[in-house]
Amino acid sequence: MGGDFGPRVTVPAVLDALRRHPQLVIHLIGDQSQINPFLKRIKPSVTERLVLVHSDTVIRNEDKPSYALRHLRDSSMFLALQCVADGVADACVSAGNTGALMAIGRHVIRTLPGIDRPAIISPVPTPAGHSYLLDLGANVDCSAEHLLQFAVMGSVLVQSVDGIAHPQVGVLNIGEEEIKGNEQVRLASRLIDEQAGLNYIGFIEASDLFSGKADVIVCDGFVGNIALKSSEGLARLIGSKVSASFRGSFYRRLLAFLARPMLVQLQRQIDPSRHNGASLLGLQGIVVKSHGAANVKCFRYALEQAVAEAQMALPEKISSRVARYLS
Amino acid sequence: MGGDFGPRVTVPAVLDALRRHPQLVIHLIGDQSQINPFLKRIKPSVTERLVLVHSDTVIRNEDKPSYALRHLRDSSMFLALQCVADGVADACVSAGNTGALMAIGRHVIRTLPGIDRPAIISPVPTPAGHSYLLDLGANVDCSAEHLLQFAVMGSVLVQSVDGIAHPQVGVLNIGEEEIKGNEQVRLASRLIDEQAGLNYIGFIEASDLFSGKADVIVCDGFVGNIALKSSEGLARLIGSKVSASFRGSFYRRLLAFLARPMLVQLQRQIDPSRHNGASLLGLQGIVVKSHGAANVKCFRYALEQAVAEAQMALPEKISSRVARYLS
Repeated sequence: MGGDFGPRVTVPAVLDALRRHPQLVIHLIGDQSQINPFLKRIKPSVTERLVLVHSDTVIRNEDKPSYALRHLRDSSMFLALQCVADGVADACVSAGNTGALMAIGRHVIRTLPGIDRPAIISPVPTPAGHSYLLDLGANVDCSAEHLLQFAVMGSVLVQSVDGIAHPQVGVLNIGEEEIKGNEQVRLASRLIDEQAGLNYIGFIEASDLFSGKADVIVCDGFVGNIALKSSEGLARLIGSKVSASFRGSFYRRLLAFLARPMLVQLQRQIDPSRHNGASLLGLQGIVVKSHGAANVKCFRYALEQAVAEAQMALPEKISSRVARYLS
Repeated sequence: MGGDFGPRVTVPAVLDALRRHPQLVIHLIGDQSQINPFLKRIKPSVTERLVLVHSDTVIRNEDKPSYALRHLRDSSMFLALQCVADGVADACVSAGNTGALMAIGRHVIRTLPGIDRPAIISPVPTPAGHSYLLDLGANVDCSAEHLLQFAVMGSVLVQSVDGIAHPQVGVLNIGEEEIKGNEQVRLASRLIDEQAGLNYIGFIEASDLFSGKADVIVCDGFVGNIALKSSEGLARLIGSKVSASFRGSFYRRLLAFLARPMLVQLQRQIDPSRHNGASLLGLQGIVVKSHGAANVKCFRYALEQAVAEAQMALPEKISSRVARYLS
């Protein structure tokens, strides 16, 4: 039910994922009167792997997480997370209120032993592929110990998903020198550096966020959210300027027509939807958060991310790593 | 002497500024043996408005601000700021160590009554022109009261420089809703909202940083630095992807040749150098900080900014506004 478009986006994406993964079963939790119109004329081989669970309570974006946790226990999001907690589902995917997803996720699924707070991690584009940035908004205030836990969890994700044996870890800061930044990042830098099993490369400036210098970059949730969204904002500005510069004269429009295949290719490389599917790391289950503005294609990437994490049994991998190094 | 290139960039930019402003006098403070080679074959009508002051002590980027303040009092940066404090110069321009510029500036020039901390402000590109963002790294930890002071100072700058009578002020946050963010931004939002004389429009998400929604956007220095540099980083990634996509086949290279005028025009619109010249607001004098990587053209923009602020008597304007509203 979440995101800017609700079932209009989530249901077609779900049907697409069911077609691509013949073993996949999806529980579709929400207002069935809104969901049903999108299920007409669908093959039984697809719909038979769909479990419909009705809930007409929706957590809105303006609801406080604490309110949602206490009073909206019959909401679609709460029921979906409860499915994971109960072992009915391997993963939960939502495009809804991030704060509520985090608060309810922590409450019903619980964090892994040794992890104080879950974090939101997402891939960011680089010249050769992608790096991962966490936390992206789950925790507005973090201690150095939290950043250390983020570094461990991010490393395990990169090892599992990308098969990199020793992922390079950096701490996001306003300068590369040791004296730069606030107490929190300087202490986190020391803790991560001392941690056996982490390949720490030092501070990363925000200008190197998309350079591929590090495989995993850690920061608190406020800073991570600002870093990601401000770069999205600039990308949008550049996009609108490019469109404007290709309008006007006939010659310019002809040029735009000729250059289109290249621009489409370029857009695909830095397309945020390809990087949709932020994961909540640190829970005893898999929760993937889709961008609220996701279209069908974007939401499908979030579903793919959940499938991949379930196949890799990511929470178990993080758990054993944390037990070895952080306890 | 500062920045990545020192006199090789700063001296030609200074000569250019002297040519453009027949009333301008510039004190060139630094190692004269490094400066002199760039002064050969220059017209006397230009060089006669140049005051050469020797100093062979340079504050390096890795020097701690507190160390520079205590032990590098004969450095070029310290002497330049002293010129402003003594009334010998109306403004100081530097591409050097930002932390040292701030620490020494505060010490020798002093803050305006009612201002606890100076802030670094810079224009950022928007579809229709630019907005201003502050603080950009002068203060890694800020209270809500500091953010209020930043809002007042930024408003005065926009009123003076851009002639906007009631600049729209926003607070950078990880969401637009009142419940989002940390204690600091929520309290700052209330303080700024209650302030008569400020046109407060609420929280601004980082994705709207380049949208022109607000004329002035305030945040603490850690967050502002990350926001600006991460978007610079993404712009660089896009630039490299564009270059790569125009290489390859003969057809692509031909297309690149034909599209060049448009790409150059586009680059000019979002060129950071056009937006070079961050100002230290809140001091009893004018200090402009150039990007360390500035080329001659960029450094000239920083000089132009200093000239404009001196002509407008910006510190006096801020002072009278602060006296009216914040005392």
